[in-house]
Amino acid sequence: MTKVDRFSDPAQITLKGVQAAAELIRGAVLQTPCLPAPKLSLLTGADVYVKYENMQVTGAFKERGALVKLDSLTPEERKRGVIAVSAGNHAQGVAYHAGRLGIPATIVMPVLTPFVKISATRAFGAEVVLAGNTLAEAKAEADRLANERALVWVHPYDDKHVIHGQGTIGLEMLEAQPDLDVLIVPVGGGGLIAGIAVAAKAIKPDIEVIGVETVLYPGMWGALKGKEVRCEGATIAEGIAVRDIGLLTQEVVKTHVDDIILATESTLEQAINAYLTQLRTIAEGAGAAGLAGLLTDPKRFSGKKVGLVLCGGNIDPRLLSKIVVRELARDGKLVSIRIDTPDRPGVLGEIATVIGDLQGNVVDVAHHRLFLNVPAKGATLDVSFEAFDRAHGEEIVSALRERDFTVRHLEISERID
Amino acid sequence: MTKVDRFSDPAQITLKGVQAAAELIRGAVLQTPCLPAPKLSLLTGADVYVKYENMQVTGAFKERGALVKLDSLTPEERKRGVIAVSAGNHAQGVAYHAGRLGIPATIVMPVLTPFVKISATRAFGAEVVLAGNTLAEAKAEADRLANERALVWVHPYDDKHVIHGQGTIGLEMLEAQPDLDVLIVPVGGGGLIAGIAVAAKAIKPDIEVIGVETVLYPGMWGALKGKEVRCEGATIAEGIAVRDIGLLTQEVVKTHVDDIILATESTLEQAINAYLTQLRTIAEGAGAAGLAGLLTDPKRFSGKKVGLVLCGGNIDPRLLSKIVVRELARDGKLVSIRIDTPDRPGVLGEIATVIGDLQGNVVDVAHHRLFLNVPAKGATLDVSFEAFDRAHGEEIVSALRERDFTVRHLEISERID
Repeated sequence: MTKVDRFSDPAQITLKGVQAAAELIRGAVLQTPCLPAPKLSLLTGADVYVKYENMQVTGAFKERGALVKLDSLTPEERKRGVIAVSAGNHAQGVAYHAGRLGIPATIVMPVLTPFVKISATRAFGAEVVLAGNTLAEAKAEADRLANERALVWVHPYDDKHVIHGQGTIGLEMLEAQPDLDVLIVPVGGGGLIAGIAVAAKAIKPDIEVIGVETVLYPGMWGALKGKEVRCEGATIAEGIAVRDIGLLTQEVVKTHVDDIILATESTLEQAINAYLTQLRTIAEGAGAAGLAGLLTDPKRFSGKKVGLVLCGGNIDPRLLSKIVVRELARDGKLVSIRIDTPDRPGVLGEIATVIGDLQGNVVDVAHHRLFLNVPAKGATLDVSFEAFDRAHGEEIVSALRERDFTVRHLEISERID
Repeated sequence: MTKVDRFSDPAQITLKGVQAAAELIRGAVLQTPCLPAPKLSLLTGADVYVKYENMQVTGAFKERGALVKLDSLTPEERKRGVIAVSAGNHAQGVAYHAGRLGIPATIVMPVLTPFVKISATRAFGAEVVLAGNTLAEAKAEADRLANERALVWVHPYDDKHVIHGQGTIGLEMLEAQPDLDVLIVPVGGGGLIAGIAVAAKAIKPDIEVIGVETVLYPGMWGALKGKEVRCEGATIAEGIAVRDIGLLTQEVVKTHVDDIILATESTLEQAINAYLTQLRTIAEGAGAAGLAGLLTDPKRFSGKKVGLVLCGGNIDPRLLSKIVVRELARDGKLVSIRIDTPDRPGVLGEIATVIGDLQGNVVDVAHHRLFLNVPAKGATLDVSFEAFDRAHGEEIVSALRERDFTVRHLEISERID
């Protein structure tokens, strides 16, 4: 058990603090909708409700905590300004509300941060400093700047003001849907779930609060279970890919959170896709983690009223479209095959006709003559087609094989997107 | 002026009728959020609010009118069932609520209707009949079936129950945002705007109600201006690509609607993209028409409180991703160029290095040796790269030209997606 010092005493996070934060942010931060999602209920067997924090102006919940922190500054501190390190939603949350309040904001981002995130942060009036190849290197430069300019740090999660701000989501969810049995909340540094858990349990002591981490970054899971864990790897949920969870947040989580579920990358993809295709809303990887947690263990939540926090929607649209295509392939609704053919006129027409006659819809064709594993006078044809479902796709493949074509299925990783 | 008979008398559409419809659908149809959209305000100069009808279970507003119509049936009619012709949102709206109420529903769709729409409609329990190559041919088969089985027609717009149902959107918008100065509403057959206009003008006589059609299908515009128009062509907004606007709806529109704006296809694309990238929500072409209308003539709405009806979100995700890429290209943030090169080792490396050194991000490369317009020993290289903005892209192209490469820009239509 970690020694609890004054800074990390979980008792400083209170329902009263969350309620004061709610009062403070009213009118400046959107009270986002929390609506039933019958299509997700059908998919999971739970009675699902979604809190749409992706509808915030900056596309994520981070504004809440940032604003509460900014409000806590002295007039002197406001004049000097604030600093934050972030390549993501925290950067925009701080920049947006600092800009609104006329507080100078310096945001340090790693040099390889995507263009779109840099320009979105600048558009809110913040000074963006690009430094370092990693968040840790950026942090070093930010430390230097903070000292030099006497700026106030806005920590993304390990700060009581920030945690109280994020907790307002819990208040709003229980106000909109008082009957919720379970809240499922994405966990990065732990600020979001810490605030929500304190508020929700104070209002409704028997509510379950469950966190979700990606299996690649199971820091809070390790803290809760008392296990050593490794945090590494490329994840689609970069917003919760946190190596150093908070000291304060982990004490709050140990006190108030019931469990942490670990979601795989493919479940995170499935959740992003479900939000897009079933609810027509955009979740980034971290934003979809709540649903991914539910999809990881649906039996556990069967029949329960489950509230999911869709905490952010800032995903590259091109990444999003790749995920959609991969999910169609996983479901057998987009079939990619490689056919070895004699290199003579009419073959392509023959193949396309077989597929079309069975109502398959060809969406992509690539013709290769240079592969060494096909005869010198032959060719290889990669064809992707849409099918009603997996069985329909197999029916079409069988029809091609009956025509004596050699057909094999291509894995997603082999296809050229 | 069209002769007004009893059926098309606009006086039968009333605020009272809309209010009764609102009472009737409460709890069965979602009361969707109507929220401020500061990013669209920044983009347009108006003070923009969005009514998210894409958050309905079926992804579109059509449920409202369908449910009110279904409720009006006699017990005898309910037993026999209903019929509708639709390849889109009306099909799902009727199927969903008929399924909920245990009323047999037959939906006739053209044979080429996309798989996903057929299966979504079947999933709600409707019998889907595929017939005809066009909606008109499908209608002929539906007429036959309706007679044979004595089914009740659920018309998509030209029906007072349907219009009263759609009008509930106007009530909800003015309840959520009473200060709205203007409502901008997509127009297909006219049911949505007819209901909204009657309700909104009765509550707030000085509110402006403006319709939007695609310039390819300007039927209501023609009716309002008394002009002959042609309706034809492939549009991204197939939900409002209506040849035969309603007789009743056009009389209501003539009485209550202030104006119709015609939006081009590229403005519709821009609007879909803005919803996706700025608001992280999915609009189909017809759903984005309200925003497209605002983007067509932003000065006209400058500083006004404008409510947009985002009426539907059922768009193929792959089409959506194409639109995003095209918008990046239009903004100069995705640059596609064709370079004639000598076919020798090292050329690709040289080009990629020039682009990379200037912080361009190569996303796609295609190498052609077979084009007849390049020297037999040369090759053509198509390169797509991301740039900060148009000027940055031009800087990179200039750097390539300084190295003596022949570079020309590719139009969107020339690129292979």
